[in-house]
Formats: sequence, structure tokens, C-alpha cells
Amino acid sequence: MSVLVVGSMAYDSVETPTAKIDKALGGSATFFSAAASYFAPVNLVAVVGEDFDFNDIEFLKNKNVDLSGLTTEPGKTFFWAGRYLANMNDRETLDTQLNVFEHFNPVLPEKFRDSEYVFLANINPDLQYNVIQQVNKPKFVAMDTMNFWITGYLQDLKKTLSVVDALVINDSEVKLLSGQDNIFKGARIIQDMGPKTLIIKKGEHGAILIHKDSLFSCPAIPVENLFDPTGAGDTFAGGFMGYLAMTGDINENNLRRAILMGTIMASFSVEDFSVDRIKDLPKTEIRQRIKTLLDLIRVKEDNNWIKL
Amino acid sequence: MSVLVVGSMAYDSVETPTAKIDKALGGSATFFSAAASYFAPVNLVAVVGEDFDFNDIEFLKNKNVDLSGLTTEPGKTFFWAGRYLANMNDRETLDTQLNVFEHFNPVLPEKFRDSEYVFLANINPDLQYNVIQQVNKPKFVAMDTMNFWITGYLQDLKKTLSVVDALVINDSEVKLLSGQDNIFKGARIIQDMGPKTLIIKKGEHGAILIHKDSLFSCPAIPVENLFDPTGAGDTFAGGFMGYLAMTGDINENNLRRAILMGTIMASFSVEDFSVDRIKDLPKTEIRQRIKTLLDLIRVKEDNNWIKL
Repeated sequence: MSVLVVGSMAYDSVETPTAKIDKALGGSATFFSAAASYFAPVNLVAVVGEDFDFNDIEFLKNKNVDLSGLTTEPGKTFFWAGRYLANMNDRETLDTQLNVFEHFNPVLPEKFRDSEYVFLANINPDLQYNVIQQVNKPKFVAMDTMNFWITGYLQDLKKTLSVVDALVINDSEVKLLSGQDNIFKGARIIQDMGPKTLIIKKGEHGAILIHKDSLFSCPAIPVENLFDPTGAGDTFAGGFMGYLAMTGDINENNLRRAILMGTIMASFSVEDFSVDRIKDLPKTEIRQRIKTLLDLIRVKEDNNWIKL
Repeated sequence: MSVLVVGSMAYDSVETPTAKIDKALGGSATFFSAAASYFAPVNLVAVVGEDFDFNDIEFLKNKNVDLSGLTTEPGKTFFWAGRYLANMNDRETLDTQLNVFEHFNPVLPEKFRDSEYVFLANINPDLQYNVIQQVNKPKFVAMDTMNFWITGYLQDLKKTLSVVDALVINDSEVKLLSGQDNIFKGARIIQDMGPKTLIIKKGEHGAILIHKDSLFSCPAIPVENLFDPTGAGDTFAGGFMGYLAMTGDINENNLRRAILMGTIMASFSVEDFSVDRIKDLPKTEIRQRIKTLLDLIRVKEDNNWIKL
């Protein structure tokens, strides 16, 4: 089954303590679809400006990504510039130019309306809501958001939350949205707003899946050479949703497997700038990293191991 | 098999955002032995002052802890006072009075010298080294340390590290000791100093076991009512070492199981002040929490789940 993503396509200028790149391909829809396309066909909806170089996304066409929903508007492409601090966790935004993204009003091509798996990347919650209305019979709708929408557009956000299955969010956003310091208490408050499935991203500390009453904790794959964290969250979401769409199974255990797949894709993404590491990954490398992650979490049990 | 612990016995005054306790039983050897005693007999070596109330540790006697190595010296018992900030991760020390602990010079009772499992809690590395010399044929020696010894007593610390099997350490101490911001790179540098097994504690984010070339990542058990984190690390070490001593198996997979047991014991410890939660735990509660932790990390695999 295919997966629909609605989000941004952008150019990023990124500085890390060791390197710097100007005008690299970025945007939530870009990272998401690059990752998801290893698992399922992707229907992409985004907007770019007249300056956009379509050669930059030639690789998406070759990867099962349908770009019929990518429109070009007068003006420039969304631009973001940021700098990561020495710990690579904190970053400062140096520049944000919304450009054509400011008036992004996603309209789904007719053939996208039957998408069963839907990912609403981090855009205005009102637009996210409108997208859901355009999908005929979604099977699983997940959304992202950020502090900007939580603090300034809470009513719109709550309306959208009330109609989605899953929220992908980081730990500090859980606290902000729920008003709770404890993320597990906070999660229950957010579940009451709508989504029964929460995917809480904790960066180098991994991710937590809360599905109804069950909890799953997945570590991040150790990265010795963290190069550029930009896009890791959207890449994670791409692996997660792509795997669900591939398997067509949204039961508890398969959601856990999907979390593993998101973790794996994100671990590649941070090893290079932009989508450079995930644009052309051999499947053997993905399989190898699945093995690495399973080794990282596996405990062999037998009936006698606890003799208490 | 029994496990030997050499460390502190103390009185703590602790303030959290919601509660406060004066002169509560504390100390690394106390938390460690309370936890380890569920799994194996414990030989405890520590020192207290004349003010110490032995009624406070009556429960240890009933729990298979041999107190022959606990001496009373003229003066007062080690005292620590601290306050946890709102996030419960950061704390400030309000007072430290080493008292009799300042001249602690651990001498093992003859019958403790055959201990096979040895835990050197956070004391002067030179004393830790001297303890190891007093054990006849240790099978597995683990040690703790802290920033104070890393920055001020590095040569002594390196000498001790060169003769132990395992180091229990937190993530910031890994960075300090190795000079590396990346804990996985740092871990290899520390392994070159001696211990082939590292247990890296990350608080609410769980723990990482690095054993030779293998990695295991274990999440913390979600705690909705974090009451007092004091002693969680020593409780963790007690569960870990106690389980190893109970099973007499230091192979890779059993080290992983021992990490689970440390995680479980620590999750109880933080639910109340002092050792109140772990001094008299029914084994059914421990078994229940083992199940909780296994559910938290379990992913069912089958041969077809990755169809890439």
C-alpha cells in the first residue's frame, strides 16, 4: 500500500562543529519520502519555488515516489539555516525564510485520495486537518507538530489531534502539550486529545511507542560519527510509516517493528548532510543494520533464568 | 555465591520538590546490599560512627547480609544533604560531612576473602585497589567512581581500572574520563585502561552494557511517581552484581540479564525515600516488574517480518 506525505521541501544551510553546507536539499517531505520509499510507494505533496532545481530530487522519481502533488509557485523555495552546537543536540536557527511555503495550501491530486497511510508532517494544524478531509478512507493517519503550533495554535491543533491515529512528537513537546513534566503522565493526557498511538522521539536516547496501554522502548543505534542530525525525525517517521504501509498491519507488534525501522533509517540519515546517506542505500546495508539493532536489544530468555 | 561490597554507610537529608526527609539511612553499601540480597548472600564492608543507630539496618541482617565487616569508629557517621531540582535529574549538594568515612581503611574479615563477586563502590581508588589485593581469587570485580576521583586522582584511578573486570559509570563520567564527547568512542578508550565491561548509567534513559565488542541497550522502567533518585545507581549495581553472583555466570547474555535486574531494582528504589521501597519487597513484586520490563523491550520476530 502507498503512503501519503504532506510537508515541506526546502533548502537548508547547515553548520556543524566540523563541517558546513550551503543550500542542501531539505524539508520534512523530502526526508520522509526518501526513507519511506524503501518500503512502499510514496505520494508526495509539497510546494517549491521557481528557484528549485528539480535535478536535486531526480533520485526520488527513481525510488517509487509519485511527485504529482509537488507544485511550483512564484517565489523562492522555503529556506532554513541553522548551526549545531558542540553536543550536536542543541541547535540555533540562523535564518528562516518561509517563501512559497507561507501560503502552502495542500490539495491532493485525485489519485492520492485513496491513500491508506497518511503522514502529516510539521505544518499548520489547520492545513493538516484539511488534508485529512481530502482522503477517502485513511487506515492510519499520523501527524507531527512543534512548539510553535502548540503555543500559538492550540485550538486548531486539538481539532486535528482529535481525528488522527498517531502523533509523532519529541519529549519536550510532550511536556509542553500536556503541561506535565513526566512524559508518561503527559502521554495519557495527549491520548485523551485523540491519538491512541504516540511515538516519542528522544534523539540519542531512542524512541518510545505508547499504543493504547502498552509501552515499547527502543534505543537509538549508537552513532560514533554523528555528522548532521537535520531531518532525522522525518527520516524516522518515513521508516515507520513506510514499514506500516508495506506490511499493511497496524497491530501492536507490527507498530514495534515499524519503530525499529524508523530507528534504523534515522541512524543512516545523521551520518551525512541532507539526504546524501539515504538517497541510495543498498538494501543489504539496511538488513545489516536491522541485525545491529536486534543485537542491541536482544536478551535470550529461558524458563529458568529467573530463579527467584 | 556471595557478593562482597565495600562502600559507604551514611545518613542523608534529602529535599525533593514535593517532600523532605532528615537523617535517612543512605550510603552506597546500604543501597547496594539491600538490592543484592534478593539474589545472593552479601558480605558488607563499611564504617559508621558512634551516633549510628543499628536498628536502622536490622532489616539487612534478616536479608542475608553479613555485617562482620561493618566497623564503628569514634566520631560521627558520614552525612550528606542534598536537594533535587524540579526535573529530578539535577541536584545540588547542600552539605557533606565525611566524618568517620574520611579515614575509612577497609580491611576484609578473613571469611570475606574468598568472595568471588566484588563490588567496589565509589570510594578513593587507592582503597579500591587495596581491597582487590585482599581478595584471594575474585571471579568478577566491578567498581564505581565519580568526577572527584577522575579529576583529582587520575593516576590512582587508572591503576585500579587496570585490575578490574567492570566499571559502572554514568554517561557524563565516561566523557570526563575518556576526554571524548561521544560515549561509544569514549568507552573504547576506557576499555583500553582495563575493564572490558562497562555499564553506562543514563538515569531515566536507561543503561548501556558494553562487553568487549558487544553492545546492549536497556531502557529504564517508566516511573510516573519519581520520589527520590538517591541511591538509584548503587541499587542498580546491587541488582546487577547480585544476579551475577546468584547465577555464577558472567557470559554476555547473562550480563544482559543482570542489567535487566539492576534496572528493575533501581525502578523500585526511586519510588520512596532511602531504602524504604527495597528493604522488604515481596518477590512477587520483583517478578511482576521483570515482566513489565520484558514487555517494554520485546519485539516478536518471525522469519518473514523483513521482506526487504
